[in-house]
Amino acid sequence: MESTKYVHGYSEREALRLNDQAATLDDIIHNDSRFSKESLVLEAGCGVGAQTKILATKNPDSNFISVDLSDDSIREAKGMIKSLGINNVELMQADIYNLPFNDETFDSVIICFVLEHLHNPTQALNELKRVLKKGGTIVAIEGDHGSTFFHPDSKYAYSAINCQIQLQKQNGGNSNIGRELYPLFKSVELTDISVSPRMVYVDASRPQLVEGFIKNTFTAMIEGIGEKAIKQGLVDNSTFEKGIKDLYRTAESDGVFSYTFFKGFGTKN
Amino acid sequence: MESTKYVHGYSEREALRLNDQAATLDDIIHNDSRFSKESLVLEAGCGVGAQTKILATKNPDSNFISVDLSDDSIREAKGMIKSLGINNVELMQADIYNLPFNDETFDSVIICFVLEHLHNPTQALNELKRVLKKGGTIVAIEGDHGSTFFHPDSKYAYSAINCQIQLQKQNGGNSNIGRELYPLFKSVELTDISVSPRMVYVDASRPQLVEGFIKNTFTAMIEGIGEKAIKQGLVDNSTFEKGIKDLYRTAESDGVFSYTFFKGFGTKN
Repeated sequence: MESTKYVHGYSEREALRLNDQAATLDDIIHNDSRFSKESLVLEAGCGVGAQTKILATKNPDSNFISVDLSDDSIREAKGMIKSLGINNVELMQADIYNLPFNDETFDSVIICFVLEHLHNPTQALNELKRVLKKGGTIVAIEGDHGSTFFHPDSKYAYSAINCQIQLQKQNGGNSNIGRELYPLFKSVELTDISVSPRMVYVDASRPQLVEGFIKNTFTAMIEGIGEKAIKQGLVDNSTFEKGIKDLYRTAESDGVFSYTFFKGFGTKN
Repeated sequence: MESTKYVHGYSEREALRLNDQAATLDDIIHNDSRFSKESLVLEAGCGVGAQTKILATKNPDSNFISVDLSDDSIREAKGMIKSLGINNVELMQADIYNLPFNDETFDSVIICFVLEHLHNPTQALNELKRVLKKGGTIVAIEGDHGSTFFHPDSKYAYSAINCQIQLQKQNGGNSNIGRELYPLFKSVELTDISVSPRMVYVDASRPQLVEGFIKNTFTAMIEGIGEKAIKQGLVDNSTFEKGIKDLYRTAESDGVFSYTFFKGFGTKN
């Protein structure tokens, strides 16, 4: 585990250094998602493989087993991985609370944007820890909607964002889980815990992030839950529309937008 | 200005690299507050010299003129600077809106935690730009109370923080000005503008910041405005007390606290 330890200790500083130069969200989040040569990595909750393809491409000498609860997602991920000619990933349907692997199977575990959806993230982390070898590292990446702020400020925009937070809560999840990675890792008794915030700060000097993050990632996501939120009475139509308009307003030449992801690292003793 | 330019371009990356290792707020904010040898630097709004002593000590080969509107503050700063044996600082009373200096006097200008108090930050920046040489850099450091979030979450804590934001607003200031450095620098037509967020992320793995930032800096500051806020009816006593208690709660072993300062750099063409 020498080299894993190196990657881990080095990761935060390197991440911060690279963060500023990062032109895309993937750079900010995954610039240090590196695993040791020959290591076997579990990706838990891969969905349709959006992170899988980045991880597998960045780590051609590691082998990934990527699992998801949804058969449909696994099918789609398989097609995508095949079409890209990626050959170091095995995809399979599995339940994160009850993984079909022996204790201490994996050198590393990575879980991206999954804990936010779970009603019991601690139980999931304990299961991930079970299948991790001693000395191995769990890496978790999560967003935190409550970290969002912007200029010009707008109470309507906050109302729209809050709809997403409420809907996630109704589903048993937690949109603000990023800030909780440290206590979560503590609660499952991981050691050498280190949490690295990845702030996506965007102003007009970073045009790729203006398009790629403010508009096409964050605001598009909030816009997408409008109908449901209005139907459920979480917000009225006019407030939500103003909120979306004000979020797009932050993408103009004098606007500023900030959102923080968190990347947690913890070791199994 | 070759070497100033270098310091400027280098600063953001270096700051991010060092930020993670920084044990104190001063490290996070000032690790890259470096000025060229022999350069003449204006520090605008030095108060009693809290930043002055850091800047002067970090830059023994630069000369500082530090000004403040308050005669009393300047007197106090003079005593402190003398007692520390610092000999590269000249302190004087002056109005930031009407500085007693010729055009293009300074190689660099730095302004820390001052714009948040001004009713017209744009006018002040224009005056700073006037006394700056062509090719010189203005550096501004400001906090942003609206960037604060924490775990465990607490509406009472947000209410207490909001009192400080409201009081600052009543005084004609803006507690959330950090996020606005980019548009402010644009509005006075500085060039090569780059804004570097300095997130102070604190969990129990960073005990110096738990004490030094969560407790003794941030929460102590909010606690300090309680009487005024309650007297003005901005908040009731019980809510404010709960808010302060909940802020201290974030300093416990499973707590997390995050606040973002912004450091802006801009060049005069």
